[in-house]
Amino acid sequence: MTPPSLTDLRRALAAGETSARELLDAALAADRHDAYRHVDPEASRAYANAADAARKAGIDRGPLMGIPVSIKDLYGVPGFPTTGGTAVQLPERFERPGPVVQRAIEQLAVPTGKTRTVELAFGGIGTNPRGTPRNPWDAKEHRVPGGSSAGAGVSLIEGSAALAFGTDTAGSVRIPAAWTGTVGLKTTARRWSTEGIVPLSRTLDTAGILTRTVADAIVAFDALDPRDDSVPERVTAGVRIGRSDGLAWESLSPGVGEAVEQALGELIVAGATQHRLELPFLSEAQELFSIGGPVASELYHFLTTHLPDRLEALDPRVRARIGDAGNLPVHEYLRRIDRLTELNALATDALRDVDVLVMPTVANTPPTVASLEEPGRYAEENLLCLRNTCFASYLGLCALSMPAGKDAAGMPVGLMLMARPFQEAHLLAVARAFERTLGTSAQRLGSP
Amino acid sequence: MTPPSLTDLRRALAAGETSARELLDAALAADRHDAYRHVDPEASRAYANAADAARKAGIDRGPLMGIPVSIKDLYGVPGFPTTGGTAVQLPERFERPGPVVQRAIEQLAVPTGKTRTVELAFGGIGTNPRGTPRNPWDAKEHRVPGGSSAGAGVSLIEGSAALAFGTDTAGSVRIPAAWTGTVGLKTTARRWSTEGIVPLSRTLDTAGILTRTVADAIVAFDALDPRDDSVPERVTAGVRIGRSDGLAWESLSPGVGEAVEQALGELIVAGATQHRLELPFLSEAQELFSIGGPVASELYHFLTTHLPDRLEALDPRVRARIGDAGNLPVHEYLRRIDRLTELNALATDALRDVDVLVMPTVANTPPTVASLEEPGRYAEENLLCLRNTCFASYLGLCALSMPAGKDAAGMPVGLMLMARPFQEAHLLAVARAFERTLGTSAQRLGSP
Repeated sequence: MTPPSLTDLRRALAAGETSARELLDAALAADRHDAYRHVDPEASRAYANAADAARKAGIDRGPLMGIPVSIKDLYGVPGFPTTGGTAVQLPERFERPGPVVQRAIEQLAVPTGKTRTVELAFGGIGTNPRGTPRNPWDAKEHRVPGGSSAGAGVSLIEGSAALAFGTDTAGSVRIPAAWTGTVGLKTTARRWSTEGIVPLSRTLDTAGILTRTVADAIVAFDALDPRDDSVPERVTAGVRIGRSDGLAWESLSPGVGEAVEQALGELIVAGATQHRLELPFLSEAQELFSIGGPVASELYHFLTTHLPDRLEALDPRVRARIGDAGNLPVHEYLRRIDRLTELNALATDALRDVDVLVMPTVANTPPTVASLEEPGRYAEENLLCLRNTCFASYLGLCALSMPAGKDAAGMPVGLMLMARPFQEAHLLAVARAFERTLGTSAQRLGSP
Repeated sequence: MTPPSLTDLRRALAAGETSARELLDAALAADRHDAYRHVDPEASRAYANAADAARKAGIDRGPLMGIPVSIKDLYGVPGFPTTGGTAVQLPERFERPGPVVQRAIEQLAVPTGKTRTVELAFGGIGTNPRGTPRNPWDAKEHRVPGGSSAGAGVSLIEGSAALAFGTDTAGSVRIPAAWTGTVGLKTTARRWSTEGIVPLSRTLDTAGILTRTVADAIVAFDALDPRDDSVPERVTAGVRIGRSDGLAWESLSPGVGEAVEQALGELIVAGATQHRLELPFLSEAQELFSIGGPVASELYHFLTTHLPDRLEALDPRVRARIGDAGNLPVHEYLRRIDRLTELNALATDALRDVDVLVMPTVANTPPTVASLEEPGRYAEENLLCLRNTCFASYLGLCALSMPAGKDAAGMPVGLMLMARPFQEAHLLAVARAFERTLGTSAQRLGSP
């Protein structure tokens, strides 16, 4: 059964065929994969009742009104505690909403709870000693859901939310989107304010959304974006797809490359054109990522300033990634910041003659939780899952992951589209055209 | 004799009573105080001839067309070398103009040369081993002109320019303005692009202007500012002057406090009101400044990246201020950046009920070059001359220095006005009202 779209839900709510309260109760009942760090039915019902009361009073706050939305446990949401994936509840100031959540709340969206995240968002696999959501696409084994927005994609697939808020510093929206067969939009850094979100990297953090379809992503983007851009209904025929050989296509798990090639083949049959691009700076972005970019020392700074007692109590997998970033000299930090600026200019220029750059969102199949206990395995899988997503982050681009098919393990595979900075509207228009060709997640992957 | 205003010059040029070439030749002949690191009459004449030719063709590019302007030797200016006050000519990329110079050139302003600066702008006194301009207000002794825009104010007083471009990171426009009896505008950081300017601090650098009168500053500001703000013709009666006791009024050289109090007294007689403010954050800003803020490590980064062979060859007075900033850990750097943001919020709030905050621009009288040879004297005088100007820089405000009178040594004393971020238009309107009461520099101070 195809799950209802945001547009369907809006229509049904407006027609009185359902209510925010009814949608919320169904959402809460669907919470079966440990996607949430914290649910509070009473707090959520207060939001739903407010939406229903406003509706009765003839008020229409737009497409998100009454919609159940899950929110990553880094965002401040009034009425809910924030842990940032740590073992403790963070001070109250971390519960204050920033502009993104504020916009959703003002439109009377209904938070279903705080979804699980890798501790302080510093990891792409999605595990957390406090609990790792089950990837719904494997009913037998406990496979990871992708992270750091570990509960976001799961909440959409199980139906405990119709829209999920995540954050993406190097892939944390796109990896869970790819591994759960959903759509994930990583906005260009500084397009959406990261105020009111526990920070990982002040330089690279972005707020983003996950949805079940591109069409839903467009509805949510239009509702949340503070700029004037609106997503064009159609793109001109012959979308120009850029791709590069090498790095992004290496070390793919069985079936990943095939699924992406299959999808691209269908798009080309439908009229898209393919352009080989020379992108020597991909390996430089990768290198900068592999030494921690600005992220590790920015996280170290945040911890030392705001949560000094947490540093040594972190998940060892997260602590290991911070390493000795506390000792990085300013000069090296500023060198990395400058390099990001230069890479951004190179990438912006390189994409001037294509609509999108494509590659597999994630190279590897989501591992089982058990397999990650092997020595060295977590670090290896983590680096590999972030390898392709970190490009858009380190190049300053916006990007979207959408379902391409399934890999040899039967797990969802993501097709990643990357576009020039602040071209979200065009990126989404291209993705919608692609979705019309490839079908939605439910049509292409079925259901778990 | 009162020197002609920018408005007078514009009228005379438009009426054909003079030409850009004639103004330039007079300007070049007035160069008598070693204000310039580099002049090139031929290059300047090419600019003047272009302005005259355009005028003959009926083209009017606005108030700066044909005006002789001196430009600090940190700015890239086509046709002129850039040294940044170092011993060497910097690579050609440093000669490319950024938006501020570009705007002046497009309006056919005429560069008279590159004015001397403290090496890499890192000092407020104005000395440089390659040459220190003479302060025109002491005909007998070689007194410093203030820095780091050391030649800027001198060029205005001697008449080798009618407008001077400087930069201000902690006082480098306002100190030379105060000590040469001119007007100096420090813009809010990030209002005017610092592209095309040899950087001292990516965080605190600002481009600014010096002029002979506030009226001229307004003409130049309107011509150069990319925003829509225009300076209101009048301010409402009863300008609200804020002042705080303590820090900014301590350790003043004889006559400095008296000159400023005299000017404030006249303003109050003319209708301004005075409001005591509690500003405990001034001492915090001062403290952050005294440990180098973000500046020393940002300069270290620039040098290491772009001019690695210059670091150990620097003026020992500059090298001493960099100290071991190369070893500062990122965490401490980001702590300072965060503190600047917090101080900015505090100051913006504290100034909500006044039009301007006032204090002496500079506490000390400009020392003689000879006196600075005493051990420890340079560091002491340098810290003191920057003490008051650094407030606006570290609090994120805009500020202006205008002549208040003379000190006991017969040297000019500056009255500093500080206003909330991006309130340059209001700040200039208040300063114009004050100038109408106090008189222009020429009226108040006479001429050297």
